[in-house]
Amino acid sequence: MTSERRSKIEKVLSKRQNDLTVVLENVFDPHNISAVMRSCDAVGIQEIFVLTTKIARHEKWGPRSSSSAAKWLTVHQYTDADECFHNIRQRYDRILTTHLSSDAVSLYDTDLTQRIALVFGNEHAGVSDEIRAMADGNFIIPQVGMIQSLNISVACAVSVYEAFRQKLVKGHYDSQKIQGAEYNTLSNQWGIEHENSL
Amino acid sequence: MTSERRSKIEKVLSKRQNDLTVVLENVFDPHNISAVMRSCDAVGIQEIFVLTTKIARHEKWGPRSSSSAAKWLTVHQYTDADECFHNIRQRYDRILTTHLSSDAVSLYDTDLTQRIALVFGNEHAGVSDEIRAMADGNFIIPQVGMIQSLNISVACAVSVYEAFRQKLVKGHYDSQKIQGAEYNTLSNQWGIEHENSL
Repeated sequence: MTSERRSKIEKVLSKRQNDLTVVLENVFDPHNISAVMRSCDAVGIQEIFVLTTKIARHEKWGPRSSSSAAKWLTVHQYTDADECFHNIRQRYDRILTTHLSSDAVSLYDTDLTQRIALVFGNEHAGVSDEIRAMADGNFIIPQVGMIQSLNISVACAVSVYEAFRQKLVKGHYDSQKIQGAEYNTLSNQWGIEHENSL
Repeated sequence: MTSERRSKIEKVLSKRQNDLTVVLENVFDPHNISAVMRSCDAVGIQEIFVLTTKIARHEKWGPRSSSSAAKWLTVHQYTDADECFHNIRQRYDRILTTHLSSDAVSLYDTDLTQRIALVFGNEHAGVSDEIRAMADGNFIIPQVGMIQSLNISVACAVSVYEAFRQKLVKGHYDSQKIQGAEYNTLSNQWGIEHENSL
């Protein structure tokens, strides 16, 4: 590994945010998932949750994946919603779905700097009632146009970039969040060997 | 036309922003252009500029278009860059390209509430040197990940939604911007007949 590459990896790891994640519920189009992964990587999200209860489990992001963004993310796959949410709640204080309901608040009125998980639903059905019931609330991306639908990769990008903006203002990228064993595990996975690793 | 439909159209027209536009330079993938159009419609952009100097002119968004967002946008197509920019400058004070250059400023440090045109380039080559030379500056979408590339539809959505957020804060959606003959022309195109039209 060149020192330039090592430096790049260390810089990216120093910006990773362990208090923001994305959950995909029964999103079936691999292109959408890849685009979501690229957006997550771009804003420093390290882990995402891919839940498939009504469609086949995705096989694409296994260890031999050729998808480039997947290589730099920790992808948790679940086929059981309870197990998935149990594990999300271990690390995140709040889980919000994107659901067009009367109690949904605007993305721009949502504090995205807390420990938060954002759930995006299936391309056609959106977030299911079951998952919605397990979450803490809903948010919407405001729209003032004739067409009331944004592609999931667009909706996710707009949401995580608003989180990025809020976090930037609050200095979330100024100091390294991932530390110790978690840092060493990741940097080992990314090809950096540690002389003083745990 | 039902009164509900008429009311919807009037509401959307009342939010249309005549001081923000998107310019696509040699973007070739129709899916990307469609996604850009949906994002533009969603934030209230009325007109966009599609410039094709190095690829074939797009035929898809003519009067018989089946593309849904295109129906609600005014799409100006050009094959000559000078003519395109001449017409953009008639209505917009500032033209910014997305170009990874040393003088590029962050999207989040850019005032998107002025009369502004945002230029997005070809999927592979980005914005050309020719177009860059004709613009007033560059902006970048900050990225802190390993993969340094966002799809053009994602980049455009993040940019126009940041404009939406800034405009929302400044009250740009509180009063109707499109008035008089421009309003009547559009609402006629959208199927509303005016008893007192000009």
